[in-house]
Amino acid sequence: MILTVTLNAALDVTYRVDALTPQTTHRVSTVTERPGGKGVNVARVLHALGEQVLATGLAGGATGDRIRRLLAASGVPEAFTPIAGESRRTVVVAPDDGNATGFWEPGPLVTTDEWAAFLARYRELLAGARVVTLSGSLPPGVPDDGYATLIGLARAAGVATVLDADGGPAYLGVRAGPDVVKPNAAELSRLHSRLLGRRISVGGLAAAEVAAAAVRALGAGSVVASLSEVGLVADSGDGSWHAAPPEKIDGNATGAGDALVAALARGLRHGQPWPERLRDAVALSAAAVAAPVAGELSLADYRRLRPGVTVTELP
Amino acid sequence: MILTVTLNAALDVTYRVDALTPQTTHRVSTVTERPGGKGVNVARVLHALGEQVLATGLAGGATGDRIRRLLAASGVPEAFTPIAGESRRTVVVAPDDGNATGFWEPGPLVTTDEWAAFLARYRELLAGARVVTLSGSLPPGVPDDGYATLIGLARAAGVATVLDADGGPAYLGVRAGPDVVKPNAAELSRLHSRLLGRRISVGGLAAAEVAAAAVRALGAGSVVASLSEVGLVADSGDGSWHAAPPEKIDGNATGAGDALVAALARGLRHGQPWPERLRDAVALSAAAVAAPVAGELSLADYRRLRPGVTVTELP
Repeated sequence: MILTVTLNAALDVTYRVDALTPQTTHRVSTVTERPGGKGVNVARVLHALGEQVLATGLAGGATGDRIRRLLAASGVPEAFTPIAGESRRTVVVAPDDGNATGFWEPGPLVTTDEWAAFLARYRELLAGARVVTLSGSLPPGVPDDGYATLIGLARAAGVATVLDADGGPAYLGVRAGPDVVKPNAAELSRLHSRLLGRRISVGGLAAAEVAAAAVRALGAGSVVASLSEVGLVADSGDGSWHAAPPEKIDGNATGAGDALVAALARGLRHGQPWPERLRDAVALSAAAVAAPVAGELSLADYRRLRPGVTVTELP
Repeated sequence: MILTVTLNAALDVTYRVDALTPQTTHRVSTVTERPGGKGVNVARVLHALGEQVLATGLAGGATGDRIRRLLAASGVPEAFTPIAGESRRTVVVAPDDGNATGFWEPGPLVTTDEWAAFLARYRELLAGARVVTLSGSLPPGVPDDGYATLIGLARAAGVATVLDADGGPAYLGVRAGPDVVKPNAAELSRLHSRLLGRRISVGGLAAAEVAAAAVRALGAGSVVASLSEVGLVADSGDGSWHAAPPEKIDGNATGAGDALVAALARGLRHGQPWPERLRDAVALSAAAVAAPVAGELSLADYRRLRPGVTVTELP
């Protein structure tokens, strides 16, 4: 089973409007809700792929209840730890023509006792897991080394880990030795800057390759960096690859990183060779971009795009 | 006791952001929630003025529960009829500088049985009421003559009514003979157009006076039209007045109409002479505009502004 951890779960709400006109009032024609937070999206992609998955994390209040009910209704098993705070909503305003505008509520405050209760539950869940994914921001109250702690506990239990985080929690997490870390270009820049003690920006393929190697050396088993339309740069320790989509995909990048994490977790679970794993990762990620609704993807798109993905070993 | 009816209650949510930039993602720094819907605002103003008030209407789902809990926490007694649908939210995005942008969710679907249950409850509540206010839109499922029915029941029980509505429900409501109807300029134009069978626009004071007289003749005991900074035009049948604020008030017009309805209900309750009633109405309404948070008002502002209000009898 693959266990997905979402400490800052969200109810993703989409408001459909005719057009967005700042400083006016809009009648929302339809409201759609889905369970969200990066780890929840990973769980939904894995479930769609037919993988055995269990979604855990923290959820509270009426919004937390709704997240859990919607997740169960979509067929994804969940074992969230309840908290007293109210889980956040993300509101996306989607005009009939034009791009979406998003509003992210802050996460709920997590108490020391709630974090301890989650850790106890997590240890139990590890017993049935082969791979754990750790995705997204930490809500207030969860210590900065939260992901580092979860990675240490997984390793002690013989469970592999995939980390998709940013800032201090990502840096401390990498030092705890996850099997795979998946930064995007901005996150990779921040990790590399923190490591070097000076601001550095990851532009193209060559800079990403250097930064990925440096981040791997900090403690990760492997690094897979996503560089938007450039594709992926992966450093596994035994080799480095560049994997690119067959065509430029227009669409909504929200959820592409989560589809990528799902592919990496599945590859780890089944011991897939790296080139195959990256081919899957690029195709799933591209299918997520092509999907009309953020966080959803079509398996038909994934299967169509997969044969055209190019994977090149870097010297 | 003054009974306020809010058939389409709302949870008013305000998102504070640095700035609103369409087609990007915003981190919301603070989320504030308050119970809303026009009738709920009327109840809160009456409660702040020390009037005995009871808030009723329809509320459902987790959002309806939250509206009721927040209302109770603010000290306003409530007797809402529960419905299976989820009450709506209104989301207002408030940048640190600049005006707010609003998103109004559609109301919940109300079943025939729920509407019948509300009518039964409303009859009971009328027994303890002296005045009823009827404010805002009707959620889907409530018949267009909903306000007309409520006005008829109130009259049969010897309870006075104040109607603040728009479109078909306002027109049918006026024909049912409310004691006071309070349109704004746009609503007055729509009522007058419907009455004349052709599109007519209410611009200044003279046109408003004609339209108010026409709408009164349709069935209302009196008409008080709010014309933004021009002030109020009132036609009571026994006389007509123009009431104007002492100064141009900058601020947020949201809630000004609800403060006005509260003043009119209070005037009706205590049999205040019309000039006094209008003086109160203008001052309360101006205090609501001056308040930094929509739907709140400062009684100090109200007391400060009241002596400067001019009330002129129209020939």
